[in-house]
Amino acid sequence: MNRRITSPSEHIRKLALEKLDNKTKPPGSLGRLEALAAQAAAVQERLDPVIEQPAVFVFAGDHGISREPISAYPREVTRQMVLNFAAGGAAINVLCRLHRVQLTVVDAGVDGDLPHNAGILPMSLGRGTRNFLHEPAMTDRELQAAFARGGELMERAKAAGTNTIGLGEMGIGNTSSAAILTHRYTGRPLEECTGRGTGLNDEQLKRKKQILFAANNAHSPGSSLEILRTFGGFEIAMMTGAMLRAAELRMILLVDGFISTAAMLAAFCICPEVLGYAVFCHWSAETGHKHALEFLKADPILDLGMRLGEGTGCALAVPVLRSAAAILSEMASFESASVSRELQ
Amino acid sequence: MNRRITSPSEHIRKLALEKLDNKTKPPGSLGRLEALAAQAAAVQERLDPVIEQPAVFVFAGDHGISREPISAYPREVTRQMVLNFAAGGAAINVLCRLHRVQLTVVDAGVDGDLPHNAGILPMSLGRGTRNFLHEPAMTDRELQAAFARGGELMERAKAAGTNTIGLGEMGIGNTSSAAILTHRYTGRPLEECTGRGTGLNDEQLKRKKQILFAANNAHSPGSSLEILRTFGGFEIAMMTGAMLRAAELRMILLVDGFISTAAMLAAFCICPEVLGYAVFCHWSAETGHKHALEFLKADPILDLGMRLGEGTGCALAVPVLRSAAAILSEMASFESASVSRELQ
Repeated sequence: MNRRITSPSEHIRKLALEKLDNKTKPPGSLGRLEALAAQAAAVQERLDPVIEQPAVFVFAGDHGISREPISAYPREVTRQMVLNFAAGGAAINVLCRLHRVQLTVVDAGVDGDLPHNAGILPMSLGRGTRNFLHEPAMTDRELQAAFARGGELMERAKAAGTNTIGLGEMGIGNTSSAAILTHRYTGRPLEECTGRGTGLNDEQLKRKKQILFAANNAHSPGSSLEILRTFGGFEIAMMTGAMLRAAELRMILLVDGFISTAAMLAAFCICPEVLGYAVFCHWSAETGHKHALEFLKADPILDLGMRLGEGTGCALAVPVLRSAAAILSEMASFESASVSRELQ
Repeated sequence: MNRRITSPSEHIRKLALEKLDNKTKPPGSLGRLEALAAQAAAVQERLDPVIEQPAVFVFAGDHGISREPISAYPREVTRQMVLNFAAGGAAINVLCRLHRVQLTVVDAGVDGDLPHNAGILPMSLGRGTRNFLHEPAMTDRELQAAFARGGELMERAKAAGTNTIGLGEMGIGNTSSAAILTHRYTGRPLEECTGRGTGLNDEQLKRKKQILFAANNAHSPGSSLEILRTFGGFEIAMMTGAMLRAAELRMILLVDGFISTAAMLAAFCICPEVLGYAVFCHWSAETGHKHALEFLKADPILDLGMRLGEGTGCALAVPVLRSAAAILSEMASFESASVSRELQ
């Protein structure tokens, strides 16, 4: 894989910050919106950035590890929730409708039959990954296919006029996968990267940790790619591939919560320049997320105590990102509005 | 003033939380959105709350204290910014357009001529308040008029179909007013309630503090109303009056930053039941805000490092509030979507 990601334009970022200082407000008084606006400008290489047809992709996949007692919900919930997405009843449906965000549900590898004509994009790599308690989750070929399919989706989205992509997921067991990935990529203790997921009690959490410790000790992957192949999931690998390709295509990447950030960790360890395209949408309530964010020196926009996934944090961040872009593109300057500047 | 504010329905709030636990998501996994949705339900007394025609009012007024060197900007900026609001070029214009929020600019007492046909609501109580370094900012009659006019605006908004009100302001010098109000209502040291406002340097901040200490020592108002009359502003008093009346009318109140929260402090000290209607939109970067919030046991939705005022925090919180209401009103339940519940 020859990645050709170049960082967003530092030159345009600085010009954008200068332009913001001429807007009718005290310098810096719009806080994070100003940094976000400058990032959008730098990614899009224009001083009047626009968020065009923002789109959230929900990648759904099952996990071999969910054969073990690591989740509060049964494995079949992945498929049931995909049907719920297709029917429009999930949280991400509600939020995307409300905020005029396109929603695409991708079958990255759900264990179960899914209807063909229900708006679910068939990109399945199999009926769930292998159980990484015993063997690597994916083969090399599967990992490469996941990257290729994730990348292809970004190319299609770009061609259709989207310049901002949100990456969400659904997969029973995927906080287990993300916990080990976060541990492996950041070097933080696995204990601290493992949380309650969808809502484990103390005893269940203890059992989850025991299983993840055993799984982690069962393999010694060397490279960033091998770590992802061993402990990742089809949906996570597809997100990583999507992130890398979207950054090559100079799209803004909305990173959701713990799982989505684990995919970004993999992308970052493969090609660090991807990070300049990332907007971290929210602080997940899941324990390991803060370690991943710290490693990436990321400071998410929203802190609403959410831990649902599905890209819900991305959908909520879209209005903030649109606000930032509009401030830079539409506000009057001191000169144009004849407003006095600071006293000297 | 006989205030007839009854608290939002605790019964409906509990039913809303139960309804949320039947939605297709792990219980509590939408974090703050769930509490917000339940508050909206309790205020509106319905389990399918809707945010109808949300409206931001920007109350503009000048301050006698701005004759002293307490601001980084000259006094005439209040009027200039009101003209900028009328022309559509300020941050609040951009955000209200983007998020489909009605914007009303109210001349609460700006020092200067304003055109009559420019969409500025003429409710002026005078050309700025008196200088509270020497005398109380308002007369009794002015304070009562401010309350009456603020209340009248809420009645009109309610009659026009609005059920959610954002309260913002513009007024050079009003962080000085808010600092003393915050000190007086919360009991926190004035020193800690006084910040850099639009951007004072260290020396200017020291001078501002000296002036505010002197002003604070010059008066001994007894009641909550007297404190507001002595140290408030026309725009702040009008906001307080608007808040009290809007809560009587069972509207959701979006409280912006430091100044808006100071108005809420006054409202709370006059009638504590107003607090159940308040949604605190963001953590202002202005020093004193955290003390006011702590006193009110409030935890704002957004933390974007903003310190602009104008109601910009309210406009940014509207999409979050709409999201919360939509989650409660529109999401599928486990039963309706045939999704399995937690394992026992």
